[in-house]
Amino acid sequence: MKTIQSPAELRELIRNGKWTTPTSGAASGFLQANLVMLPAAEAFHFLLFCVRNPKPCPILDVLEPGVAEPAIAPGADLRTDLPRYKVFENGEFKTDVQDVSDYFDDQMVSFLLGCSFSFENAMLAAGLPIRNVAEDKNVSMYTTNRRCHSAGPFSAPLVVTMRPMTPEQAIRAVQVTTRFHLTHGAPVHLGDPGKLGITDLDRPDFGDAVTVHADEIPVFWACGVTSQLAATSAALSRVITHAPGHMFVSDLKDEDLTIL
Amino acid sequence: MKTIQSPAELRELIRNGKWTTPTSGAASGFLQANLVMLPAAEAFHFLLFCVRNPKPCPILDVLEPGVAEPAIAPGADLRTDLPRYKVFENGEFKTDVQDVSDYFDDQMVSFLLGCSFSFENAMLAAGLPIRNVAEDKNVSMYTTNRRCHSAGPFSAPLVVTMRPMTPEQAIRAVQVTTRFHLTHGAPVHLGDPGKLGITDLDRPDFGDAVTVHADEIPVFWACGVTSQLAATSAALSRVITHAPGHMFVSDLKDEDLTIL
Repeated sequence: MKTIQSPAELRELIRNGKWTTPTSGAASGFLQANLVMLPAAEAFHFLLFCVRNPKPCPILDVLEPGVAEPAIAPGADLRTDLPRYKVFENGEFKTDVQDVSDYFDDQMVSFLLGCSFSFENAMLAAGLPIRNVAEDKNVSMYTTNRRCHSAGPFSAPLVVTMRPMTPEQAIRAVQVTTRFHLTHGAPVHLGDPGKLGITDLDRPDFGDAVTVHADEIPVFWACGVTSQLAATSAALSRVITHAPGHMFVSDLKDEDLTIL
Repeated sequence: MKTIQSPAELRELIRNGKWTTPTSGAASGFLQANLVMLPAAEAFHFLLFCVRNPKPCPILDVLEPGVAEPAIAPGADLRTDLPRYKVFENGEFKTDVQDVSDYFDDQMVSFLLGCSFSFENAMLAAGLPIRNVAEDKNVSMYTTNRRCHSAGPFSAPLVVTMRPMTPEQAIRAVQVTTRFHLTHGAPVHLGDPGKLGITDLDRPDFGDAVTVHADEIPVFWACGVTSQLAATSAALSRVITHAPGHMFVSDLKDEDLTIL
C-alpha cells in the first residue's frame, strides 16, 4: 500500500471501502478521535457528561443534529469516513458495519472526543517506551473503582489505559502528556493498581496484557472507552460508536491542541 | 467590615442582603464565576456555544434543569448567592434584582463560566501591572471584529479585556496566564488594536479607559462578557446573568484549575 499523504486521502480510501483496518499509525501526526452518535433529545446530557469528565472525555467537536461534516475536517462525512462502526439499540449491541448512513438521521448528534494516539506519538518522540507498540498489541485497559460524575442517564466507571515505565520515565511522561490536555492529558495515577481497584494487571478488561519489567511501575491515563460505556449503557433508542481502534482521522495536527 | 474568612461566609452575607457590592477582591484566592441561566430547551446549544468558544466561555460548572446548588460550591444557591443579577426577557433587559427566586423555575439551566479575576491575582503575585486595579477602575473591554463560532441561536463577537504593559512584562503575562486555561488562559492578541477592529483604546465598549504609558503595548484577553452577549442577544423567553462585577464566588481555589 502506498504511503498515505493526508487525512483527506485516508478518509477517501476508507469511504470507498479500500481501507477497513484500524487507523493506528495512519496519517501520522494528525489528530484521531473517538466517535459517539446519539439522539438529540439526550445530547445535552451527554455533552454535560463529557464536560464534567474532561480527562476521559475531552471534547474535540460536537455537531448540530443531522450534521455529519465536522468543523475539524471540512469535507469529511462521519457516516462513511471511519473504517468500522458499532451500532447499539436500546442498550444492546445490534451490528458492526462500515457505513452508518442507514442508521443516521436528522436527529442524530455526533461527538468527537480526544484519543491517546496523540500523546503516544509525543512520548515516542521523547524516547519513552510504549510497551504495547513495541509488543504489537492493543493497549491494556482496565475498569476502575472510580465513578465518573453522572449527567442525566449517563454514568460510567473511569476506564484507564496503562503503560509500564521506570519512575524516571514516568516523571518525563507526566511532563509530555500534560501538554495534551484535550487528548487525556496527564496520568490519573501511577504505582499502585490496587488504588484504582485493579487486582491483576495481567487481566485487562479491554485490550491486551503487556510485559511489566521489574524496575517499572504502571502509569495510568484516563481512556476514551469511558465515554463509550456511558453512551451505550444508557439504553437509548440508538447509539453509534467507532469500533475499537477504527478512529476518525481529522485535519488537525496533534500539536494544534497542546496547551503549551 | 470584618475580613471575609471563606466563600461560604461571603455567600451567606450576600444571601442575607448584607453584601450588595461587587465581589472583586472578596474571599481572595477563591475562584469567581460568570453566571448565565436560560431555558433547558436551549441549553444544549448554549453549552455547544461555550464548548466551541472555550477562551471567552470556559465552562466551570453546568447544572441540571431546576437545580441551583453547584458542584463547585456545595450548600450554595445560585438564586440568592450573587449580590446582583440582570433579568432579560425576549432579548430585552427587564430588571436588575438581588434575588432571582421569582424568575427561576424547574426548566432553568445554570452555567458558571471562568472569570479573569483568577489570573489577575496570579499576575499581581508575579509583579505584573494590572492598571485598572492601580487606577481603581473597571477593566477596559472592547467588542472586536472576530466572530465566535455560533451554535443554534447563539452568536456573538469576541469581547476582550485589555491590560497595558511593557513587551517584557507581556511575555511574562503570557506565561502566567497560560496556566489558567479555564479562566480565559493566554492572551488572544498583543500590540495592534486595529488587528481586532478596535479604533480607539480610550473608548472601551464596556468598563473604563486606563492609562497606557509610552513604553507599553496593549495586551488582549478573551472576556466572559462574550457569553453574556450570546445569551442575551438570542431573544430567549428568559435569560438571567450576574450584574457586571457581581460574580458567584465558588469553593474552588484559583490554583485548582491550572493546567500545570
